Amino acid sequence: MLAFVCFIFVCCTCFMCFTFYAAIHFIICGDHCSLTYSAGALGGGMMLQGLSVDSSGPSFTPLVVVELVSDAKEETIGWLLNKIRDQQHDGGAELLVEQLGPGVGAQEKENPNLFLVGATWQRLLSGAEDVGLFKESTDGSMRAFTCANKHNFKDFGGDGDGFLSMAECQYIIKHELDTLRAKDETHVPGYKQAKLYPGKSIIRRLLSKRILIQIFPLHDKEELKRLSFSWYKKVKLSLQPLDDIRHYYGEGQALYFGFLEYFTFALVPMALFGVPYYLFDWEDYDKYVVFAVFNLIWCTVILELWKRCSASLAYRWGTLSRKKAFEEPRPGFHGVLGFNPVTGREEPLYPNIKRQLRIYLVSLPFVLLCLYLSFCVMMVYFLMEGWALSVYDQEPTFWTGVLLFIPSIIYAVVIEAMNLIYRYAAEFLTEWENHRLESSYQNHLVLKVLVFNFFNCFASLFYIAFVVQDMVLLRQSLATLLITSQILNQFMEAFLPYWLQRRRNKKMIRKVQKRRILEDKELPLAEQVRLEADMSTYLGTFDDYLELFLLFGYVSLFSCVYPLAAVLVVLNNVTEVYSDAFKMCHVFKRPFSDPAANIGVWQLAFEAMSVIAVVTNFALIGLSPQVKTYFSDSETHLILWTVAAEHGLMAFKFILTFLIPDIPKHIQIKLARLEFESLEALKKKKMLEASELRKMVQ
Amino acid sequence: MLAFVCFIFVCCTCFMCFTFYAAIHFIICGDHCSLTYSAGALGGGMMLQGLSVDSSGPSFTPLVVVELVSDAKEETIGWLLNKIRDQQHDGGAELLVEQLGPGVGAQEKENPNLFLVGATWQRLLSGAEDVGLFKESTDGSMRAFTCANKHNFKDFGGDGDGFLSMAECQYIIKHELDTLRAKDETHVPGYKQAKLYPGKSIIRRLLSKRILIQIFPLHDKEELKRLSFSWYKKVKLSLQPLDDIRHYYGEGQALYFGFLEYFTFALVPMALFGVPYYLFDWEDYDKYVVFAVFNLIWCTVILELWKRCSASLAYRWGTLSRKKAFEEPRPGFHGVLGFNPVTGREEPLYPNIKRQLRIYLVSLPFVLLCLYLSFCVMMVYFLMEGWALSVYDQEPTFWTGVLLFIPSIIYAVVIEAMNLIYRYAAEFLTEWENHRLESSYQNHLVLKVLVFNFFNCFASLFYIAFVVQDMVLLRQSLATLLITSQILNQFMEAFLPYWLQRRRNKKMIRKVQKRRILEDKELPLAEQVRLEADMSTYLGTFDDYLELFLLFGYVSLFSCVYPLAAVLVVLNNVTEVYSDAFKMCHVFKRPFSDPAANIGVWQLAFEAMSVIAVVTNFALIGLSPQVKTYFSDSETHLILWTVAAEHGLMAFKFILTFLIPDIPKHIQIKLARLEFESLEALKKKKMLEASELRKMVQ
Repeated sequence: MLAFVCFIFVCCTCFMCFTFYAAIHFIICGDHCSLTYSAGALGGGMMLQGLSVDSSGPSFTPLVVVELVSDAKEETIGWLLNKIRDQQHDGGAELLVEQLGPGVGAQEKENPNLFLVGATWQRLLSGAEDVGLFKESTDGSMRAFTCANKHNFKDFGGDGDGFLSMAECQYIIKHELDTLRAKDETHVPGYKQAKLYPGKSIIRRLLSKRILIQIFPLHDKEELKRLSFSWYKKVKLSLQPLDDIRHYYGEGQALYFGFLEYFTFALVPMALFGVPYYLFDWEDYDKYVVFAVFNLIWCTVILELWKRCSASLAYRWGTLSRKKAFEEPRPGFHGVLGFNPVTGREEPLYPNIKRQLRIYLVSLPFVLLCLYLSFCVMMVYFLMEGWALSVYDQEPTFWTGVLLFIPSIIYAVVIEAMNLIYRYAAEFLTEWENHRLESSYQNHLVLKVLVFNFFNCFASLFYIAFVVQDMVLLRQSLATLLITSQILNQFMEAFLPYWLQRRRNKKMIRKVQKRRILEDKELPLAEQVRLEADMSTYLGTFDDYLELFLLFGYVSLFSCVYPLAAVLVVLNNVTEVYSDAFKMCHVFKRPFSDPAANIGVWQLAFEAMSVIAVVTNFALIGLSPQVKTYFSDSETHLILWTVAAEHGLMAFKFILTFLIPDIPKHIQIKLARLEFESLEALKKKKMLEASELRKMVQ
Repeated sequence: MLAFVCFIFVCCTCFMCFTFYAAIHFIICGDHCSLTYSAGALGGGMMLQGLSVDSSGPSFTPLVVVELVSDAKEETIGWLLNKIRDQQHDGGAELLVEQLGPGVGAQEKENPNLFLVGATWQRLLSGAEDVGLFKESTDGSMRAFTCANKHNFKDFGGDGDGFLSMAECQYIIKHELDTLRAKDETHVPGYKQAKLYPGKSIIRRLLSKRILIQIFPLHDKEELKRLSFSWYKKVKLSLQPLDDIRHYYGEGQALYFGFLEYFTFALVPMALFGVPYYLFDWEDYDKYVVFAVFNLIWCTVILELWKRCSASLAYRWGTLSRKKAFEEPRPGFHGVLGFNPVTGREEPLYPNIKRQLRIYLVSLPFVLLCLYLSFCVMMVYFLMEGWALSVYDQEPTFWTGVLLFIPSIIYAVVIEAMNLIYRYAAEFLTEWENHRLESSYQNHLVLKVLVFNFFNCFASLFYIAFVVQDMVLLRQSLATLLITSQILNQFMEAFLPYWLQRRRNKKMIRKVQKRRILEDKELPLAEQVRLEADMSTYLGTFDDYLELFLLFGYVSLFSCVYPLAAVLVVLNNVTEVYSDAFKMCHVFKRPFSDPAANIGVWQLAFEAMSVIAVVTNFALIGLSPQVKTYFSDSETHLILWTVAAEHGLMAFKFILTFLIPDIPKHIQIKLARLEFESLEALKKKKMLEASELRKMVQ
C-alpha cells in the first residue's frame, strides 16, 4: 500500500513538474509581446555603433550608470566628475561622464544624481591592456591584448570600434573607476567623515559611506533581445548559446550556465538507467547494489571531465591564463590605518589574530548551535512522522495515506525557511569577521552556508538510512524533500522577483503614458535607465550553485534507493535553465562581467560531496539485503569487505583524479607555446641589445 | 622467552648501530690525514680567485670537464671546440676551453681528449640572466638577476667576480653547453651516423651517440675541505651547514640534507615517547592505542610543516619563484623527425598512444608479475619461519632461539637483493617506454620502484599483522627487517664505493710518486682532473629518498607495536647524515647543482604513505586487546566505531592539509610584493610611453 501511495505521489509530482515547466514556457512565450514592448527601448541611444545621447557635450555611448544619493553635495559631485574626467597622468580616469536628464514624467522624488559613464575607443583599448584582457589573435591562439600589437588580433579593424564587447567595455570602465585613487585629499569634499588617504580607492570609500548608491552596467536591449531569443525562446531543442551568454554577461555567468548544462547532460544516463529500475520489479529495494556502484563511478568521472570542459571554455574565452590583479580591500573592510606590507601603501590593517578569534570563538560556535537546532527540528519531524504513521495504521484510508506525506512536506518547507534565515545570519557574521579580500569573504560565507545547508537537507536522510535503516521511509522522504524544495526554489527564485519586477515595469510605463503618447511603445533613455536602476541587483551565482550542489547531493548520495531522483533533477535542471535565463534577462539589473577561469570553490565543494557519496553508497551497499544474504554467515565479514572495497575505490578515485589531466592536451600545448614564444622573444630582445652595445663600443 | 630473546636481539642491534656509527666516525677522522694529503690539490689552479692554468691562451679558471672518447676524430673535436668558443650571435656559446695537458705519469692508455671549460665573468653574468638565477638584492628580497640591475644585488662589487658561487657558474656553463644548437649541419662532422637537424642540442646528440663520455664539474678542494670540516668533522653537536651545502652542491642536494635533518628531528619526540613505552611494563602488547593515535597525528603534522620549511629554504635559496625553462627532450629519446607543436622546431616525435600501450601492456603486467613473485618469496619465508618455530618448540635452547631470527634475516637480505635487481629492470623498462622529458622519465621510474619496494618491504608485515594477527611475530619481523636493511644499506651505499675509490686514489698517488717526488703531497691539476674523471658518478638523490621513504613507512605504519623503531631510525639517520656527507665529498664526482624548489614527487609519496598509515594504525587499534575488551559484547560495533573514527580522522587530516598554508605568511607577503612591484613598474613604463607619445604629437 505504502509503495502504491509512493508511486502515485511520484506520478503527481512528475505531473506537477511538467505543468510547472509548461507554465514557465507559456509565461515566457506569452511574455513575448510585453518584451518586444520594452525591448529595443534604448535602441536609439544605447547601441554601440556610435550614436550619441541627446545631451550636450561630446558624443559618447553610455555604458555604466553611477547613482549618487539624491542629497549629495554639489561640491562632492563636481569633485568626483572631475576625477573621472581628468587625464590619467593627473590621477584621473580619463572617462566621459554625463548627468542623466530628467525623465518624461519628472517628479520631485526622482533622484537627479544619475550619471552615465562612457569612454572613447582609444581609452577603452588602453584599459583593456590595463586589465590584461585576452583576445583571439590572428593565428587562432589567445593572447593578452596590447595596444602595440593591436593589429595582430582577430576582428580588429579601423579604430577598433566593435573589437571589444559591451560587457568587456563595462568591465574596463568598472576597473578604471575602482582604481581611481585619492592623492592628497584627507576626506571626500563635502563629507568630513568620509576619510581618505593617499592611494585609497575613491569609489570604494563613497560606496562604504553610502554617498554612492550603486554602479551598474546598462542593458543593451537589441542584443538582449537577440540573446534571449536564441537562449530560451526558440522552440527547437538545442544547446545554450554559451558564447553569446559570455559575450553579454561575461565568463562567470557563462561558466555557471555551462556547468548547469553539463550537469544536466551528465545526469541523463543515470536518469535513463533509473527509469526502468524504478518502473519494473527491480523495485523491491534489494537490487540497488548495481545502481550504487554505477553512482560511485559516475560522480567521480563527471567531476573530472568537467574540469577539462571548464578549462576548454575558459581557454576559448581567454580567462584561463589571465593573471589575477592585486586585490584591493573590500568596501566594508575597516581597521587602523597602517602600511600594507605588499604594496607599501597606506591602508587600514586589521590583525589576523583578531579575525581568527572571531572565527573560532564566535562564528564556529554559532554554526554548531545552528546545526544543533537543525537537529532538534529533525527530531520533531520524526515525532510527527511517527504520529502520522500511527494514525494511518489505525485507519488506513486514502486521506490518512496522504497524511503520511504531510510531515515531510512541512519539514521541507521548514528546511527552506531555516536555510534562508541562516543565510542572513551567515552573511552578517562573515561581514563582522572583517575579511580584507572579497574572495576570502566569499570563501568563508560559502563554507558556513554549505555546512549548514548540507546538514539541514541531508541529516534526516542519513538518520533514516543508517540509524532507522528503513529504506521505504528513506525513499519517501527523499522524494518529498527533493520535489518540495525544487518547487519552493523555482518560486522564490524566478516567479516572485519576476512578479515584483513586472509590477514595477507596468507602473513606469503607465506613468510615461500619462504624460505623452509613446511612438513605438519604447521607453526613452532616461526612463529606461531609471527603470533599470530600480531593478533588483543580481547577487552572483552563489544561490544557483548552492541549489545545484544540493541537487547533486540528492542524486549522488541516495539515488540508488530512489532511482527516479535523477529524472526529477534532470527535469528541474531543464526548467532551471529557462527560469535562470529568464531572470537574468528580465528580472535583474545587468551584472558586471566577472572574468572567471573556473567555478572556483564550488569545484571543491562538489568534489567533497563526491567523496561523501562514496562512503554513503558503500554504507548503503553494506545495508542492502542482497549483499547481506551473500554474507549471511558473518556480519563482521560483510562489514570488513565493504570497508575494504570502499578504501579500494577511494584510492582508485584519487588515482583517477591524479591521472586525468585537468587541462586537455591540445590546450596545454597552446599554453606552452605561448610561454615559449614569450621566452624566445625576451632572449632575442636581449641579444639585440647586446649586439647594439657591441657596435657602440666599436 | 621470546620477548626476552627479542629484547636481547634489539640490544645487540643497538650496539651494532653504535659500533657502526663509531666506526664510520673513526674512518672519517682517521681519513683526515689522507684527505689533507689530496685536499687543496687544485689549490693553485682551481681556486676561483682568478689564477690561471699553466697552459697557453687567455687565463681562465677551469670549471667543467668535457671528456670525449679517446679515439674521437680531430675534425669533430675542432668543430666542437669552435662551437664552444664562437660568439653567441654566430650560434656559439662564447666560453673558454682548453685541452688538459698530459699528466705526470703520462701513459699511452690515458685519454688525451679531456677539455677544461671556463668563462669570463661577463659571460657568466649574462648566463646567470639566461638561466633566470635568483639572487638576494640589497633590500633583502630575492630577485631574478639581470645584468642591467646588477648593482642592486647584495655582494655585487667590482666586475662581479665572487658574486656567483662556483656551483652556480658550473650550472650556467652546463646550461650554455646544453643549449648549443646545430644550425645547418646534417650530422656531426666525422660521424655520419650522428644525425643533426636545425635546433638539435649538440651535446645531447654527442652524449646519446657516445662520442662524448661525460661532462662533470670540478671539485674545489679548498672549499670542499672547509665544507667537510663544518659538515661532519666537527665533534660538537650542531645542525648541518645547509647554506654551505647549497653553495657547494646546489639546491637539490641541500634540500635532501635539509629533509633528512628535519625528518630526524621530527622523529625525536616519537623516540622519546617510545623508549619508556618499550622499557617498562607497557610492553604487554595491548597498550599501543595511545601510541597509534600519536603516530597518526604526528605523521600528518610533520609532512605539513615540512612543506612550509621547504618553502622557506627554497625562498632563501632563490628557487621558489624561479621559472622552469622549456624542457628539452632527454638524450635517450628517439622517434620520427617532425615538428614540435610547442616550439615549432624540428625534433623527434614519438606518438603518445604507443607509449601508453607500452606502459599499460608491458610495464604494468611486468610490475604485477614482480609483485606476485615477491608474494611467493614471502610465502616461502613464512614456511621457513614455521619450520624454525617448530624446531624451537621441540628443543628450546639459546641457539634454537637465535635460529628464530634467521629466516627474518635471510628474508631481509633477499628483499634487498630483489629491490636491487628490480631497480635495474625498472630502469630498463622506463627507458624503453621512451619518455620525452627527463621529469616524466623520473616520475615513471619513481612510481615503479616505489610500488615494488613498498610491497616487498611491507607485505610480510601486513600479512602478519592482519592475516596472522600475531603481534609478537610482527614486532620481531619489524625489528629484524629494519635493522638488517639499515646495515645492508649503509654498507652498499657508503663503504663499498668508498673502499673502491680509496683503492683507485692510492694507485694514482703511487703512480705519481713513482715519477717524481711530490713537493707538498698534492696532486697536480692534470692528475687531479683525471682522478675525478675516474670517480663514480653520483646518480642523484633517488636512492637516498627511497631509503628515507621506507624508514618513514616502518615508523608510521607499525611503530605502535614496536616503539623502538623510531629510536633505531633516529640512530640510522644520524649515521646516514655522516655517511651521505662523506660519500658526497669523497666518493663521487661533484654533481651539477639542480635548482629544486621542493622535494618534488617525494612529497606526494610521503603523503600517500601517511594516508596508508592512518588506515593501518586504525586497523591495529581495532585489533588491540585493549579496544576489544571495551567492545566485548559486539565485534560489529567495534569495527563500525573503528571505521567511523578512521573516516573522521581522514577528513580531519585533509581539512588540516587544506588549512595550513604551504608557504609561510611572511614569504607569501614577500612574493606578493615582488609581483606587485613588477606590475607597478610595467604600468609606470606604459604611462611614460603614453606621455612621450603625447608630447611628440604636440
